[in-house]
Amino acid sequence: MTNDAALAGLTALLKRAHVLATVGELLGWDEQVNLPPGGADQRAAQQAALAEAQHAAGSDPRLGELLGALEGQREKLTTDQRAIVANARRDYDRATRLPADFVQAKAAQGSRGYHAWARAKAADDFAGYAPVLEKNLEFAKREAGYLGRGGAPYDYMLDRHDPGLTAATVERLFDELKRDLVPLVREIAGSATAGRAREAAAKLKGFPVAGQREFLREVTSKIGFDYTRGRIDVSLHPFCSGTGGDVRMTTRFNEDAPLDALFSSIHETGHGLYEQGLPVEHLGTALGIHAGMAMHESQSRLWENQVARSRGFWRFFEPRFRGVFPAQTAAIPSDELYLAINAVEPTLIRVEADEVTYNLHIVLRFELEKKLFSGELAVRDLPAAWRAASRDLLGLEAPNDREGVLQDVHWSDGSFGYFPSYCLGNMLGAQLWYRALELRPGLEDDFARGDFSWLLGWLRENVHAQGRRFSALELIQRVTGAELSPRHLVRYLRERYGTLYRA
Amino acid sequence: MTNDAALAGLTALLKRAHVLATVGELLGWDEQVNLPPGGADQRAAQQAALAEAQHAAGSDPRLGELLGALEGQREKLTTDQRAIVANARRDYDRATRLPADFVQAKAAQGSRGYHAWARAKAADDFAGYAPVLEKNLEFAKREAGYLGRGGAPYDYMLDRHDPGLTAATVERLFDELKRDLVPLVREIAGSATAGRAREAAAKLKGFPVAGQREFLREVTSKIGFDYTRGRIDVSLHPFCSGTGGDVRMTTRFNEDAPLDALFSSIHETGHGLYEQGLPVEHLGTALGIHAGMAMHESQSRLWENQVARSRGFWRFFEPRFRGVFPAQTAAIPSDELYLAINAVEPTLIRVEADEVTYNLHIVLRFELEKKLFSGELAVRDLPAAWRAASRDLLGLEAPNDREGVLQDVHWSDGSFGYFPSYCLGNMLGAQLWYRALELRPGLEDDFARGDFSWLLGWLRENVHAQGRRFSALELIQRVTGAELSPRHLVRYLRERYGTLYRA
Repeated sequence: MTNDAALAGLTALLKRAHVLATVGELLGWDEQVNLPPGGADQRAAQQAALAEAQHAAGSDPRLGELLGALEGQREKLTTDQRAIVANARRDYDRATRLPADFVQAKAAQGSRGYHAWARAKAADDFAGYAPVLEKNLEFAKREAGYLGRGGAPYDYMLDRHDPGLTAATVERLFDELKRDLVPLVREIAGSATAGRAREAAAKLKGFPVAGQREFLREVTSKIGFDYTRGRIDVSLHPFCSGTGGDVRMTTRFNEDAPLDALFSSIHETGHGLYEQGLPVEHLGTALGIHAGMAMHESQSRLWENQVARSRGFWRFFEPRFRGVFPAQTAAIPSDELYLAINAVEPTLIRVEADEVTYNLHIVLRFELEKKLFSGELAVRDLPAAWRAASRDLLGLEAPNDREGVLQDVHWSDGSFGYFPSYCLGNMLGAQLWYRALELRPGLEDDFARGDFSWLLGWLRENVHAQGRRFSALELIQRVTGAELSPRHLVRYLRERYGTLYRA
Repeated sequence: MTNDAALAGLTALLKRAHVLATVGELLGWDEQVNLPPGGADQRAAQQAALAEAQHAAGSDPRLGELLGALEGQREKLTTDQRAIVANARRDYDRATRLPADFVQAKAAQGSRGYHAWARAKAADDFAGYAPVLEKNLEFAKREAGYLGRGGAPYDYMLDRHDPGLTAATVERLFDELKRDLVPLVREIAGSATAGRAREAAAKLKGFPVAGQREFLREVTSKIGFDYTRGRIDVSLHPFCSGTGGDVRMTTRFNEDAPLDALFSSIHETGHGLYEQGLPVEHLGTALGIHAGMAMHESQSRLWENQVARSRGFWRFFEPRFRGVFPAQTAAIPSDELYLAINAVEPTLIRVEADEVTYNLHIVLRFELEKKLFSGELAVRDLPAAWRAASRDLLGLEAPNDREGVLQDVHWSDGSFGYFPSYCLGNMLGAQLWYRALELRPGLEDDFARGDFSWLLGWLRENVHAQGRRFSALELIQRVTGAELSPRHLVRYLRERYGTLYRA
């Protein structure tokens, strides 16, 4: 068989598996957005049947044969073809090397773990949760072993979400970030302006949902989300799912916190633009999938923060916002509205954190995860370690474990290694932002005219259209000409908040 | 293997195939309700991948082995077990006896046929559509041949939707119906009251969608639709899909025709109650599926017509309707509203027909379909035959084929044999209605108190919970003690419209 024939065969099989995966994703979306409670059992059965079909498609022996043949001819492949083969190998190994009984036992443990966590959180009972965490760590290490990464199980966990990422890299980046960010947070949070910003945000009350919906629809369309290739609905927790021509975002509305739905929608729009920007003809292969969760997060954060909290953005949208909500905004001067948009307040809870302190919540989790995997930290000592780290990093100490180590769902089903991508996304986003500004210094003037096309076009070409040809770290180097560094994020936070809060 | 073990194995395989079918149904619902236009290609790929998985599950050789074993022990099976085996055999033969290239060619022809029909209808060009119809007939006959029904292809078409139904039975029933109904329609449509009823209906204008939504939600809940196990959304054409704990209905709103969304929702609620009433533990086998499309239609028609057009029903709901729409209904006296609800007007278009004349539209289609299959009628002579039948049955003649033979989509993708179930459903519904009235003469007094529980309970027990143990004709005999007859439908139409229109 020629390489071209082998690649065509491989691509067809990959696309088949991918299409089934998109069905599973749609079922997941529907579960959050539409499913009546009585449909829960049937939905579980549907997901199980689909997982079986997906697994059969992803572990098809023909995939293994074609991969073997192509890997034997690696030197004759183009860069794109190598990327396709490498990514397919990664998925194929994961589909075939985990014994079926292990996969089942892990799924059952994940489900038990979730319920144990929910109980433990409600009862503020870490001791009742500790055995679950120990078991989850054990499962994670065994899984890494099956994939040949038994010697570096935490690296394996990171790599699952961001191909090629290692704990050593994350540690180096986070140490540098921490050094600058901890004093910056102290400085900002302690300023008199921080108090004024929080008061301004608290004054935004009584914004009807219909108006919020109209305004966020205008904003997200203007930014570039294509509603002929996607939609937005309501769910308990905002998320974005789907790809290509059918990208589905969700949000949630609170009449007394209109900026929440707006900024969460802009965040999801960033994810959605990435998915809409992948080349549809390559969906299912490395050329048609995002470059990992960190790069994904960079897109959501860049639009949410660098773009939508900028002066230029609000020069265009403030009159429109006031137009939709004349009564609610009449007594709020322009500078106060902008302060509300950029309110910063250290909090114990990650999901409530502002964009400055959010990063420290992630650093905290990374450091503890890493030590759990290396054995430096025992599960039973986790609550004390959490409190100590929270004091050091955030200057806050939780009065209980519910608002401390028990706050996140992630570890309950074994999702280790995911947290870092949130903060790496902020770093990547800031670095992309300054590169874009170098190329087009008048970017904020574009925004002030309601024109986001240059920025979107540049991201489309340099990030979205690249698919997974490169890892996030390779891609940022190619696009910006420099290695990933936290200094761009620190610069951005300093410029935005340092300036604003001294003003 | 014992019969119990074989049945357990069979049931597990059937449930697996059924669960995949429910995923396909959900994708279909989502396509009508949510899909952005850009997602059409991906949706087609998803349905194709799912159809492949479904076909693999439905043609699993283990199914054939288990069926063979159980059929060899038929005399030792209970009635329920025989029903399970017979229904599984029907599906298995259909999944395995049609050659793959035939299935593909037929699907492609169906898709081409749909587009050819849409073009021909727009251009009023029957000649351009005729070759498609000829090809579709040929495919239908070949399909019947593969399933061993080559000698009676139209019986096979009917049986696909209603197990056990034959053209001879339908013909006998329809001939009898026609004899009584044609003069009744002339009598009703020509009366002075008919004109008043149409004027009353035309006066209902300016009913905001939000109010319509609220009112139909109240009505459908009160009737018994369980919204913790289902939902209602908006689509271009109303339909009901899903089963068990997740039943999804749709409707569409017109501010100037508030009764349309209301009655179409009650119609879909009838379908939905049937699906919600199937025993969930048996979903996937004959004990957990409806008894065919005619019986399904009987449920939608019974709630839509016998129940929701009754005096008792409106004694309860009229004050509520006026409460939601005080301004819109102020000038409409009670008897006029009731006339509007029961307006009758012969029309050329089936989907716009009232419940009296609707049946004649079906008789017309059945008679032509039957002759097309027997060869008595050539496709090229269809337009003339349609016009003649329309004149005889409805007293109307279409000025063109667009409003005549080209009006329906069904034949364009080869869906022959489906039309009769609409009219058989009306007959079954009326016969069930009079049996219910015999058992509980005060049924309309229940409705006047807003109590629909006796009727729903009786249908649950006697129809819904029976699944497909019996064919529709067997089931109606068991429930009412008599063979299916059109005289109950004629009696009902005479009682409702004869009385009302003479008043």
